[in-house]
Amino acid sequence: MYREAIYHRPKNNYSYAYDEKRLHIRLKTKKNDVDNVKLIHGDPYDWDGDGWQFSRKDMLLQASDALFDYWIVEITPPFRRLRYGFELQSEDEKLIFTEKGFYETAPTDDNSYYFCFPFLNAADVFMAPEWVKDTVWYQIFPERFANGNPSLNPAGTLPWGSTKPTTTNFFGGDFQGVIDKLDYLVDLGINGIYFTPIFKAHSNHNYDTIDYMEIDPQFGDKETFRLLVTECHKRGIRIMLDAVFNHSGYYFAPFQDVLENQEASAYKDWFHLSEFPIVHTPKPNYDTFAYFGAMPKLNTENPEVKAYLLNVAKYWIEEFDIDGWRLDVANEVDHNFWREFRKAVKQAKSDAYILGEIWHDSMPWLQGDQFDAVMNYPFTNGAIDFFAKDKINASSFANVISKVLTMYPANVNEVSFNLLDSHDTPRILTLAKENKDRVKLLYLFQLSFIGTPCIYYGDEIGMAGGNDPGCRACMEWEVQNQDQDLFQYVKLLIELRKSDSLFGNGGSFRFLHIDNRQNSIVYEKYDKGRRLIFAVNNSEETIKIPIEKLVKAKLGEIEEWIFQEHLSIKKKSTLVKPTSTINIQPLSFRIFEIK
Amino acid sequence: MYREAIYHRPKNNYSYAYDEKRLHIRLKTKKNDVDNVKLIHGDPYDWDGDGWQFSRKDMLLQASDALFDYWIVEITPPFRRLRYGFELQSEDEKLIFTEKGFYETAPTDDNSYYFCFPFLNAADVFMAPEWVKDTVWYQIFPERFANGNPSLNPAGTLPWGSTKPTTTNFFGGDFQGVIDKLDYLVDLGINGIYFTPIFKAHSNHNYDTIDYMEIDPQFGDKETFRLLVTECHKRGIRIMLDAVFNHSGYYFAPFQDVLENQEASAYKDWFHLSEFPIVHTPKPNYDTFAYFGAMPKLNTENPEVKAYLLNVAKYWIEEFDIDGWRLDVANEVDHNFWREFRKAVKQAKSDAYILGEIWHDSMPWLQGDQFDAVMNYPFTNGAIDFFAKDKINASSFANVISKVLTMYPANVNEVSFNLLDSHDTPRILTLAKENKDRVKLLYLFQLSFIGTPCIYYGDEIGMAGGNDPGCRACMEWEVQNQDQDLFQYVKLLIELRKSDSLFGNGGSFRFLHIDNRQNSIVYEKYDKGRRLIFAVNNSEETIKIPIEKLVKAKLGEIEEWIFQEHLSIKKKSTLVKPTSTINIQPLSFRIFEIK
Repeated sequence: MYREAIYHRPKNNYSYAYDEKRLHIRLKTKKNDVDNVKLIHGDPYDWDGDGWQFSRKDMLLQASDALFDYWIVEITPPFRRLRYGFELQSEDEKLIFTEKGFYETAPTDDNSYYFCFPFLNAADVFMAPEWVKDTVWYQIFPERFANGNPSLNPAGTLPWGSTKPTTTNFFGGDFQGVIDKLDYLVDLGINGIYFTPIFKAHSNHNYDTIDYMEIDPQFGDKETFRLLVTECHKRGIRIMLDAVFNHSGYYFAPFQDVLENQEASAYKDWFHLSEFPIVHTPKPNYDTFAYFGAMPKLNTENPEVKAYLLNVAKYWIEEFDIDGWRLDVANEVDHNFWREFRKAVKQAKSDAYILGEIWHDSMPWLQGDQFDAVMNYPFTNGAIDFFAKDKINASSFANVISKVLTMYPANVNEVSFNLLDSHDTPRILTLAKENKDRVKLLYLFQLSFIGTPCIYYGDEIGMAGGNDPGCRACMEWEVQNQDQDLFQYVKLLIELRKSDSLFGNGGSFRFLHIDNRQNSIVYEKYDKGRRLIFAVNNSEETIKIPIEKLVKAKLGEIEEWIFQEHLSIKKKSTLVKPTSTINIQPLSFRIFEIK
Repeated sequence: MYREAIYHRPKNNYSYAYDEKRLHIRLKTKKNDVDNVKLIHGDPYDWDGDGWQFSRKDMLLQASDALFDYWIVEITPPFRRLRYGFELQSEDEKLIFTEKGFYETAPTDDNSYYFCFPFLNAADVFMAPEWVKDTVWYQIFPERFANGNPSLNPAGTLPWGSTKPTTTNFFGGDFQGVIDKLDYLVDLGINGIYFTPIFKAHSNHNYDTIDYMEIDPQFGDKETFRLLVTECHKRGIRIMLDAVFNHSGYYFAPFQDVLENQEASAYKDWFHLSEFPIVHTPKPNYDTFAYFGAMPKLNTENPEVKAYLLNVAKYWIEEFDIDGWRLDVANEVDHNFWREFRKAVKQAKSDAYILGEIWHDSMPWLQGDQFDAVMNYPFTNGAIDFFAKDKINASSFANVISKVLTMYPANVNEVSFNLLDSHDTPRILTLAKENKDRVKLLYLFQLSFIGTPCIYYGDEIGMAGGNDPGCRACMEWEVQNQDQDLFQYVKLLIELRKSDSLFGNGGSFRFLHIDNRQNSIVYEKYDKGRRLIFAVNNSEETIKIPIEKLVKAKLGEIEEWIFQEHLSIKKKSTLVKPTSTINIQPLSFRIFEIK
């Protein structure tokens, strides 16, 4: 066995409390190197004359990527304490792997050899709000969704959709517009709205806050916002706002005070200033977001700043009943601040959702003490590279998705924010070079995957657009310009996700078949009773897949889900022999159910 | 290259802030598989027409163990932000390793490929109290150190040292005894005392607390304790107490209340009770430490319990000016509690030391938000197995120590609590089968290693004793029964540690030469200006070591440290040719200095 490849470390994605009773333990081994793995486990204090008392439990091969196999097992220790190791078996070798290294037989003289999950304390369990698992998000860039109250239009507002979006133009989108279009959103079936920033700011994207306690007047007043939240809640739609706490805008009063009074300003410790006078050209001599002088970094270690921002976080929950915060540039703010933020937010609303914007490995923020989830860019990149761009092959895609599934605990994955695009990226139709079939495959995968999917406004009716500012065009409300077929398709998938928990977060995910030659994948969602099998052709040719590769188990009764004319689903029994094959049309898919 | 062995993950011992400006980045590779490694690094926001802008910096091979090489580099990112990857070079291959995997050339189109240290926020830096680095601890089990006030003796107290310690006998050790013996401790040179529990309790070890707010009357009253702390502080000696917060004792008033009033008790949520009536025989039906019914586990998630214990933590600091808390069974208490504990303690005294008792990998507690250090049992086990028991060979010992050095950040290692034995283990002389030379080697290694060493009372004068209760004998105060030679030896090493920072925490540690055949090791402590080289013979034969293996660098002027009759050090220049050899007597050592 390749010992150097074998990896485990407690208290992260390799060992964690799934809930108040169950632990998950994972192990990484070199791909195809180990035939089976058993968990050796026992209570640390169970001793008799023969030494430490332990049992064995089989581990499941959960996923594989290019280099590694990932094994998992769930265990419920009666006294919520665990010492454990791994018994690995290959064709010609048996090895025991412990915290102290490798042994030929399991040591029993001392259990300090073993890995330790000392105690499953409920206070430390990662617990995201229950409702998030069943949420389909819709991201709204408020300046561009709908203009419902032209009297609020800022000076120079352009007619809706009359020209391309630029980094500086305004079209007058507002809250009344969103309220007016709630029927549309209810029809689509989404049940959560993520708004990019709505607070008073300078630019059209509002990421340069002037006042965290005020709505940007072009969007409406606080009463309109309150009405919007109420009307959404009536319809079962939750509201998440964007918290830009890493930096303020240039016109944020404390920063203006610093510019005016310099070292004498009462706010000089609100930012990270290295010398006076502070200047923003040619280069800012204070800390900023990236190198933008107009976005001075807030000193979140300063108790006054902390108190101010935590009050902001509570205010919009307590006064307006919002349901969550998305945290902009979340990883550049200190962990200590986010721990206090979590306490303040959960105190204000125990089931509020806290979502961090982090593009990288985010395990340090997902231990239960900071965020409920991060924006799942590794998922995004994999899905886009495979389905939209056809840039990576089926194996590479499966490797990325396997990494996504194994890099975090299962309870983290269930509430992961799975986006395909956003106001920071080109739109999916553009990424797919306007190929609608590719967009449909993207939605199929996103909406049947573990996590909580998000749809970027307008994608569902076929809007295109490149990088910022192209992706921020006005929502298309002319029905004849909307892709109704795509809308109905997305609506159906959302409905399936909401009506069949196995389609959504209710089941486990695994790949059954990866075919680079035919550019296709087969994956399944399964639980103890049922299996949903998705056979997806990512190529532009019709392909054939042998039934046996598709099913990989004893054949039960197989039904196919047939999408009918009005895009409802009819289930049809299929007679199959293991030796037969199925056809899949180019850039298309088929779904089978086995009970 | 062996890709499966290459490992890095941000924000633990593989990447961390060493202080408010400097980051350390580490990489693990298969042993002897890679010739050199460079860090590829840049600011995430540095772009020009050629793409992302980065630099390269050589990494140092810090240590190796049986399977892996460990590389390290220190870097000071100008804007406290870093994206980075690794360029690995072997004889026949160059590879770039990033968060997304391996590449042949470093990608520049997008820096989200790379690993991310998003921002070095001062609030998140692990910072232990400065004084700990220069502390030599002395562990006192108060019932057995000295009886200074016989009027406090509990009924049935036995004459001092008149018989063997048992799990139930009492000898009357107290605070006045410690005060009386402070000259002895000052003479030895220690500057920190760790007391096992001193609070009112039932047993002779006091780990079964009755009242956390009261001193056990056999030890004295609060005024005597206050005097003890004052007298110690006058002599530059800090005081650390033992916080037994995982569980209380059976006679703790709230638990007695539960026993009496059962479900009607106001304290029923202070513990983890699963059913009523609660019973402690034949098996307790409530959570306990191990299976001891007399040690009911405290519910540290209950706000009342939290408030009570945090008040205890603050009370002894604020009222008596103690300098630190050692946390018993620290890993079975929830992380959330320890985060609040840290805040409370540091608020009461910003440079108080927080030391957790954890026998396993403790990275989750050492991220800056919980503990300052843990009891370094991996160090203990390695040192005992090699020097005391001669149970592992030189390579295995070097592997253990290399693991100890690389499993935590460098700033964590500098304050790690390096013990050789304690009230929970046999004494070192007993572990070494009464071989004093082995004990001397143990002390040499402990007192010249990175961390903060602790001496268990009486070991320094040659006390022996097996497992609890054997290791808890009365301190030997009859001078003729004390091993004066050993005392002077330990005293000298402590003096060296305190007077020469390179001997202590001021330098880096590395192995120069490992010899399994001769059962010997050579290690050095070094900084930019000096090198201290320790050549240690762990065998019972005289051995020869070639100078070149010992020095492994250009020869400068070499001086030998000669231990004189009264055990002071004289430095003597040595004429050496690279081809010459030095002799080392059985179970002995020589120290050389190169400038």
